[in-house]
Amino acid sequence: MQQLTIIPPRSGTSFLVKKGQHLRVVDIEGEQVADFVCYNLADKAEYLSSGRTIDYAETIFLTKGHPFYSNRSNIMFDMVEDTVGRHDFLLTPCSADTFRIIYGHQQPHRGCFGNLSEALGQHGISPDAIPICFNIFMHVTVDGNTGKVDVLPPKSKAGDYVVLEAKMDLLVGLTACSAEMSNNYAFKPIGYQIED
Amino acid sequence: MQQLTIIPPRSGTSFLVKKGQHLRVVDIEGEQVADFVCYNLADKAEYLSSGRTIDYAETIFLTKGHPFYSNRSNIMFDMVEDTVGRHDFLLTPCSADTFRIIYGHQQPHRGCFGNLSEALGQHGISPDAIPICFNIFMHVTVDGNTGKVDVLPPKSKAGDYVVLEAKMDLLVGLTACSAEMSNNYAFKPIGYQIED
Repeated sequence: MQQLTIIPPRSGTSFLVKKGQHLRVVDIEGEQVADFVCYNLADKAEYLSSGRTIDYAETIFLTKGHPFYSNRSNIMFDMVEDTVGRHDFLLTPCSADTFRIIYGHQQPHRGCFGNLSEALGQHGISPDAIPICFNIFMHVTVDGNTGKVDVLPPKSKAGDYVVLEAKMDLLVGLTACSAEMSNNYAFKPIGYQIED
Repeated sequence: MQQLTIIPPRSGTSFLVKKGQHLRVVDIEGEQVADFVCYNLADKAEYLSSGRTIDYAETIFLTKGHPFYSNRSNIMFDMVEDTVGRHDFLLTPCSADTFRIIYGHQQPHRGCFGNLSEALGQHGISPDAIPICFNIFMHVTVDGNTGKVDVLPPKSKAGDYVVLEAKMDLLVGLTACSAEMSNNYAFKPIGYQIED
């Protein structure tokens, strides 16, 4: 078993998770989001699909017991542990454009999108190939009558985690999210480890 | 002005819409969904993004007045008319896998995904490059407490329509949807015309 690896605040990384291995993602300090995306290592044109996953699960709130599907409707991983129970699968990773359009920043941070682009670019993934991410610990509400979407502070406390079991060899991108609103206006690290 | 072009039941097509032109999509008989997707004609790696659009609009229910964004956060089109007010932007187009997994069909139809793959393949778009579509007239409810997603009969009646104003030259894919549940268990045509 690996030790816990730390992703510093407002940064991202990429790594491989083999079929059958478990990826534990830990909110070390609490109220910190981690954007997650993955690709089939054997054919990286196959990627995690929010639309397919939500369609088959018949819910926008994915948690323990749910399989996560690729754009080709293959199961990429199962969520097998979840101490929080609330994550987002609707929104794209924060980016320079997010900070410009939503926050009005003049010199915006590159955000999770920029961090993922760099981390995944080393493995041949272009920025255009980064889809909607599974935003672990992100707390997004949807008003079923009006459709309004709100971003609230994460429900995760220090030490909370999820565990994902890979169903194929995966290239994974993972961040400690860079958007103020998503993290209750403080940036913290994210921890992860790969377990057999 | 073109005449209304008919997309037969359970089929799809592709065409160009130039910047400044208007695309009218008409539910000719009522309660029929049309899956819509588009690409920047000048660089087809830029595509319609549900995640960016929902993020910036702060709602999952897009209607008249909303700009629709690409994965690169550029506005692809505005919705300028909408006689229905309810469409879906969460779910991927129905496919052979959808019919197999959700409906249990043994010899499944290729669905909107298969129809779009063929129609867009002529323009160099691979099936893997077909994202979550904007599902015009599709009536999907979300329970804000549980997250549960339900597909109900469309609210559209015969003659209802939307009009989209292109903000860049677009390659468009459009279907008359093939999924029973989405269309209240009857398959009907969809009409469209391009207006200056």
